[in-house]
Amino acid sequence: MRLHHVGIAVVDLEEAKARYRLLGFTPVAEGEVAAQGVRVAMLRGEGETLLELLAPTGPTTPVGRFLERRGPGLHHLAFATPGIEAELARLKAEGARLVDETPRPGFGGHRVAFLHPSSGLGVLWELVEE
Amino acid sequence: MRLHHVGIAVVDLEEAKARYRLLGFTPVAEGEVAAQGVRVAMLRGEGETLLELLAPTGPTTPVGRFLERRGPGLHHLAFATPGIEAELARLKAEGARLVDETPRPGFGGHRVAFLHPSSGLGVLWELVEE
Repeated sequence: MRLHHVGIAVVDLEEAKARYRLLGFTPVAEGEVAAQGVRVAMLRGEGETLLELLAPTGPTTPVGRFLERRGPGLHHLAFATPGIEAELARLKAEGARLVDETPRPGFGGHRVAFLHPSSGLGVLWELVEE
Repeated sequence: MRLHHVGIAVVDLEEAKARYRLLGFTPVAEGEVAAQGVRVAMLRGEGETLLELLAPTGPTTPVGRFLERRGPGLHHLAFATPGIEAELARLKAEGARLVDETPRPGFGGHRVAFLHPSSGLGVLWELVEE
């Protein structure tokens, strides 16, 4: 697979966008995923892998709780796949523990699914259909 | 800039290599950076961004202390630049706080430099000359 994006938990989306602009990464899409209680800015630099800034809309959202527990920083790795159901079935058969047994709507209209961090040895893995 | 690799702190390099093989990432280089007390496996998938697995050679190394403090997981983001001195000077002038004022030897013969996590809002940024 290919690394689609790196998810980064931030407190203030505008501050973080300014910081990554220093490295030449600029927003290509912004919006809110209401079901996850998160505001998103997807950034692109010169390469193919994107950076996804995630700011919580409240303290009891998943990213809000992450910030409370660990502070701002690296949150997840997302891998692109053309067929997310087949990939989930394959990973489950290989022993991976899934958070999402079936895909759900993610940012930008993509279908996504998360695996349990135990499967990624402490790293939260996401699959993004593309 | 372009995301060159994502650094991931792991306890057991072999276990982690097997885990990322599930996602189609396989080692393209392996070795030790003795000055940093770390064993490294650089993995490539179908895309351009690499994954750098980092296993400490002892508990008092930088990655050993990271594992003690935070557990295994995402460690840093590395960005590729053709001219590392100029990039460091530019970032410093922009107000970034540097860990390495001058480049030092990194894995695979590249010159690298780290910035302070406060500059990356909780994310450790590395520059890799390439």
